[in-house]
Amino acid sequence: MNYTYLTNIPLDEARESFLKMIAEKCEFLGEELVPIAEATGRLLSRPVYAAISAPHFHASAMDGVAMLARDGFGATETTPVTLKNYTVVDTGDPVPADCDCVVMVEDIIDDDGVLKIAQPPVPWQHVRQIGEDICAGEMAFPSYTMMSPSALGVLISCGVTKVWVVKKAKVGIIPTGDEIVAPKADPAPGEILEFNSTIFSGMVREWGAEPVVYPIIPDKLDLITETVVKAAEECDFVLLNAGSSAGREDFASTAIGSAGEVLIHGIAIRPGKPAILGRVGTTPVVGVPGYPVSGVIVLEELVRPALNAIAHLPAKNKVMVPAVLSRKVNSPLKYEEFIRVSLASVKGKLIATPLSKGASVISSFAKADGLMVIDQNTEGLNAGSEIMVEALRPMNQILNTIAAIGSHDPLFDEVSNFINRRYPGLYLSSTHVGSMGGINAIKRGEAHVAGIHLLDEADGQYNLSYLRTHFPNGGVKLMRGVGRLQGFMVQKGNPMGIKGVEDLTREGMRYVNRQKGAGTRILLDYLLKQKGMKAEDIYGYEREEFTHLSVAAQIASGSADAGLGIYSAASSYGLDFIPVCVEQYDILMDEEFVASPLFDAFASIIRSKEFEDRLTELGGYTFTDTGKMVEYRD
Amino acid sequence: MNYTYLTNIPLDEARESFLKMIAEKCEFLGEELVPIAEATGRLLSRPVYAAISAPHFHASAMDGVAMLARDGFGATETTPVTLKNYTVVDTGDPVPADCDCVVMVEDIIDDDGVLKIAQPPVPWQHVRQIGEDICAGEMAFPSYTMMSPSALGVLISCGVTKVWVVKKAKVGIIPTGDEIVAPKADPAPGEILEFNSTIFSGMVREWGAEPVVYPIIPDKLDLITETVVKAAEECDFVLLNAGSSAGREDFASTAIGSAGEVLIHGIAIRPGKPAILGRVGTTPVVGVPGYPVSGVIVLEELVRPALNAIAHLPAKNKVMVPAVLSRKVNSPLKYEEFIRVSLASVKGKLIATPLSKGASVISSFAKADGLMVIDQNTEGLNAGSEIMVEALRPMNQILNTIAAIGSHDPLFDEVSNFINRRYPGLYLSSTHVGSMGGINAIKRGEAHVAGIHLLDEADGQYNLSYLRTHFPNGGVKLMRGVGRLQGFMVQKGNPMGIKGVEDLTREGMRYVNRQKGAGTRILLDYLLKQKGMKAEDIYGYEREEFTHLSVAAQIASGSADAGLGIYSAASSYGLDFIPVCVEQYDILMDEEFVASPLFDAFASIIRSKEFEDRLTELGGYTFTDTGKMVEYRD
Repeated sequence: MNYTYLTNIPLDEARESFLKMIAEKCEFLGEELVPIAEATGRLLSRPVYAAISAPHFHASAMDGVAMLARDGFGATETTPVTLKNYTVVDTGDPVPADCDCVVMVEDIIDDDGVLKIAQPPVPWQHVRQIGEDICAGEMAFPSYTMMSPSALGVLISCGVTKVWVVKKAKVGIIPTGDEIVAPKADPAPGEILEFNSTIFSGMVREWGAEPVVYPIIPDKLDLITETVVKAAEECDFVLLNAGSSAGREDFASTAIGSAGEVLIHGIAIRPGKPAILGRVGTTPVVGVPGYPVSGVIVLEELVRPALNAIAHLPAKNKVMVPAVLSRKVNSPLKYEEFIRVSLASVKGKLIATPLSKGASVISSFAKADGLMVIDQNTEGLNAGSEIMVEALRPMNQILNTIAAIGSHDPLFDEVSNFINRRYPGLYLSSTHVGSMGGINAIKRGEAHVAGIHLLDEADGQYNLSYLRTHFPNGGVKLMRGVGRLQGFMVQKGNPMGIKGVEDLTREGMRYVNRQKGAGTRILLDYLLKQKGMKAEDIYGYEREEFTHLSVAAQIASGSADAGLGIYSAASSYGLDFIPVCVEQYDILMDEEFVASPLFDAFASIIRSKEFEDRLTELGGYTFTDTGKMVEYRD
Repeated sequence: MNYTYLTNIPLDEARESFLKMIAEKCEFLGEELVPIAEATGRLLSRPVYAAISAPHFHASAMDGVAMLARDGFGATETTPVTLKNYTVVDTGDPVPADCDCVVMVEDIIDDDGVLKIAQPPVPWQHVRQIGEDICAGEMAFPSYTMMSPSALGVLISCGVTKVWVVKKAKVGIIPTGDEIVAPKADPAPGEILEFNSTIFSGMVREWGAEPVVYPIIPDKLDLITETVVKAAEECDFVLLNAGSSAGREDFASTAIGSAGEVLIHGIAIRPGKPAILGRVGTTPVVGVPGYPVSGVIVLEELVRPALNAIAHLPAKNKVMVPAVLSRKVNSPLKYEEFIRVSLASVKGKLIATPLSKGASVISSFAKADGLMVIDQNTEGLNAGSEIMVEALRPMNQILNTIAAIGSHDPLFDEVSNFINRRYPGLYLSSTHVGSMGGINAIKRGEAHVAGIHLLDEADGQYNLSYLRTHFPNGGVKLMRGVGRLQGFMVQKGNPMGIKGVEDLTREGMRYVNRQKGAGTRILLDYLLKQKGMKAEDIYGYEREEFTHLSVAAQIASGSADAGLGIYSAASSYGLDFIPVCVEQYDILMDEEFVASPLFDAFASIIRSKEFEDRLTELGGYTFTDTGKMVEYRD
C-alpha cells in the first residue's frame, strides 16, 4: 500500500516521448479498400486520381441544335446561313463528335422546316466540355483527405467506385477491479458500477476508432497481464482501466511492464496523474486512472494524440474562447491542472465559473461548458482574470443558456426541462451555491438569475431587505417565485419522535445540515435563536450538504435522523415531514437579462400552467403572484 | 419547355413559412426506448431522473478505520482514546451503517494490536457520502439533452439502463431522370452518374437522420407521383431530386401538388432557386434542384432547419470567421447568393477567394474552405471588403494550409500528397489561374506560393524579368523549380502529321488553347511571333482550357487535334507529343511565408528524392538546382 508515483513528468514532455516511442516501435494502421458509399468520415490512405473526366462527354448546356461552328461562319442578319449538318439537342444531351457548338433554340430561324442562323456561332459555345469539373488522370484528392459527403459525389462523378482508406483503429478497453460490476439498476453497497468503458467507448468512437470492451477482470496480476497481452494482439491500442483504489495502479504498471515496456508512470497533471504510458509488442498501451474525470482527461490529452498518430489524423480542432474567471482558483505548482467550467454570457462577457474539482464527480463533466487549463508552475488565478477556455459545447448553445446560480430548488430543473421542450436551442443551467451565493453571483455578473429565500430576522420578511442592502443602486429585478413548505425531514414513521427544533439537541440525535449561506441553514439558525439554543449542541450541525435532496438522501440512508428541507425532497424519498413554515422563494435577476429575449422565454415558463401543475405534483409549493415583478426599493 | 419560376420568395421568408407549415400540419418524430449503450448522439425525449444516488453507499475515501466520530471525542496527544467499535476499510469500501467517519491509517496508533487515536475525528471526515455526485430523484438531464459519452457515464452511475430518445428521422431520397444511372466506372456518353443521393445521404446522416434511397425513377409523372406518395408514407421527410435539365422541375411540382400541397416553388437564392417546399399528408417534401451544388445549398438552408424542427434539434452551430475578400464579386440584386471560397491565412489575415460559381462543379464544393453569403439587394462586394465567412473546415486545418495559386502543374498535387503524408495536419491547396494570375495573387496577398513559367521574349529567359517588373521592391522570394518539357499534344499516331507551330493554321486543323495569362499560352504566342503567324488564323485559338490535363482531355476525346502542354499530360492520356522546348517552372513565394514553419515543410518536399522520383515517373521533368533559392534582382 506504500504507493509512490514513479515520476512527475510534464504533460508535453510525456506526450512527446509517447509519440516518439510509437513512431519508433509501434505499428501504424493498415489500409482497406471500401466501396465509396461506406467512405464518409474515413481518411484516404492513397491519393485518388480521376478514372474518367467529369463531365465524361461533351454535353449541351442549352436546348437547341448542335453543329460545327465553322459551318456557320459568315452568317449575318441579311445573309443567314442554312444549316445542313446538325443535331437537335436538349440540355444535358451529348454533343455529337462532329459538332463543336450549340446554338440556342431562341437563335434558330425555322423557315418552313429549314433551319437558319443569322449570326456565326463561337466554337464550343453552350457546351459543357469534357473535364470541366475534373479531368481523367487528375488527382481528385491527395492521401489523407477526410471523405465528406460532397467528396463522395466527386469520386462518383469521376468514375471511382472504391477507395483505399486507413483502417479504423481497434481500441481494446479492459476494465479491472474486484468491486467493479457491470451496469445494473440495483447495485449492492460496495459494488461500483462499471461506466468508464461506456464513456471511453463513446469517446474513441467519436474519434473514428472502434472500441472493443473486454470483460471485467478481477484484481489478479496474472489475469490482468494475460488480458493485456491478448488485447495487444487483437487490437491496435489498449486502455487498461485500473480501479479507483490507491495502489491498484501497481498491477497495471507491473502487468504492462512484464508483458512489454512502461515508458512513463506518473504525469504532472491533475486530474490524471497516475497514468501509465507504455506498449506491449507493437501496440501502445495506456494505464488509465479509475476515476472517470481523470480517465477522460488522460484520454483527451494522451490517448487521442496517440490514436491520431497511428491513424494519421490531424490534431483535434480546439475551439478556444476568451472568458473572464468568476472566482479565484488555487492550483498546486506541481501539476498542470484541468478545470471544468460552466460558461455564461452575462452583460456581454463570457464568464467562466469553475465546477467541482472532484475526480469522481462525472456529472460535472457531463454538464461542463468548457475546460480551462492552469499551467504547471502557476499557483492559481484570481477572480477577474482573462483566460482562454476550450468550449466543450457549441457556442450558439452556450450563448443561449440562462445561467441560474443560487439556492437549490428542483423547480430550476423543471424550468430547464420546460424551456428545452418549448424553445429548441434555448437552455438553462443551474448551480447550487445557496441564496447568499446567488446574490454574490448576480453581483459579480456570473449569473442571469438566482433563486433566493432569505429570511430577515428583524421583520420576518423574505428577500427584500437583503436586496436593499446588497443592491442599493438597483441593477437587478426581483420576480416573485413560489411559497415553499419547509420542515424537518425525518425517518419514515418518525421513530425519534421529533416535533420541532427543540428535539435536535437530544442525546443520540444525528442532524444533517446545509452549507453556509444556504437560506435553509439561515432558517435553522433563526429557529435556534428563537428558542435560545446553541448550534454546537447539535450533533451533525457541521455536516453539510448542498441540496435538499442530498439531505433527504442521508436521512433515507439511515446515517442521519433529521434535517431541515422542503416538502418535495422528503416526499421523493418517502420520509416523514414536520412542517415548520412557508417561506417565500423568489427569483433575483440581472437587469440586462430582464431586457433580453431569454427573459421572455424564462418568464413564460414560470407563469405557465404546466409549470404550476408540475410543482403541484411535486408537492409543498404555493402560488401567489408567481411570475410577478416586485419592487424591492422603497 | 417554357419554364417559369413560380415565385422569387426571399430565403428567410420561405424558411419561416415552411417551418410554420410543418408546425401546423406535419408530424414531429416519435420517441423510442433504447439501452444507454446505444444512446450516444441521441436526444432525450423525456427528462431523466436518477434512479439511485451516486455514490449509492457511503464509501471510504481513504485506507483506515471506520468508526462513530462521537466515540473519539476528547482524544488528545496526552489522552488518546482506545477504539472499541471500528471496521478496517480500504478506499472505496462501504462505511458500515453504525459508523460516520474514517480515520486515516496514518493517524492510527497501533499499540500492540490495540488501536488508539490522539485527536477527535470530525463526523463524516474522509467519507464520500451517498449522493455526493447525484441524488436519487434528482433530474439528471432535462428533455432534449444530447447524450455525450460522459452523459452516459452519469446515467449508468445513477442506475439508469434505458432512456427515451427522439426517433431518428427517416429521410426518403428519390432520384429521378431518364438519363440518370447508378454510379459505375464506365458510363456511356449521355448517361449522368447519380451521385446526389450519396451526397444527400451523407449529409442527413451527419445531421442524425437515416437516409432511405429509392430506386431511380424515370421522367414519368405518374411514377414520380406514386413514389412520392409511397415515400411520404414510409418516411418522415422526403427529398425529390429532380434531374438537371430545365423543365424537369415541372414534374416534381406537379407530383407534389397533386399528392399533397406545394407551399413554395421558387426561392430567391443562387444556387438553388428552383427549390420546391411542400408536403404530402403530414410529411414535409422538398423538391431539390438537380445540380449538386444547388442541392447542397437547399439541403443546408431549408432541409436541415426543417429536419431540426421535427427532431427538436437545435440550430446548426455555424463557425463564422472574419476574412478579407480577395476579388470583386458581382451578384444579382434578385438573389441571395451563396459563394464557396477558399481561405488562406496570409500575412496574418484570413483571405477569402471565391471559387467557381458553376452549380455543376461539385469538386469546388468538396474543396471549399468556407461559404460566404451575399444578401439579396446587394449588387456585389469589392476586393478588400471585410466579410464574415462560415468556416467549412476546422480552423486549425485552414490555418495550416499552404495556398498555391498560379500556373497549373500536376506537381502541386503531388506536393500536396507528400505534405499530407509526411506532416499530418499540414495541407496544401492549389488553384489554377495561370502564371500571371499567380503573380497577381502573391501581390494581393492571396497566396503563399505560385508556380510561374513566364518567358521573356526579349532575352528568352524565364521569370526573372517579370519579377523585377512586378516586385521591384522585393517582398517575394523565388525558388528554382523544375525544367518542364513543353510540346504539342496530338492524337495517338499523329494522324494530322503535325510537326510544329506552322501546322496549326492548316485547313481542318482544330486547336485547343489555354486561358489568357497562362504561361503556356504566352509560349504559343511567342512561337507564333517567331514564325510571323497570326492567332486569328488558328481555328480554336479562342477555345480555352485551364489545365494541361483538360487540354489533353479534349484532344483525347477527338474534339481537338492539337494543343500545347506538358509531356506528363500527353502521356497520361496516351497522346503523341511533339517536343518544343524545356521551360523553367519556378515557385514564387511570399517573403513572410518563407520565414514560417510552413515553408520548411514545403521546401523539404520539393528538395526530397521521393518528389523527384515521382515527377520522373510522370515524365517530362528535369531537375537542376530544384529547391534552390534564386535572387531575381540585380
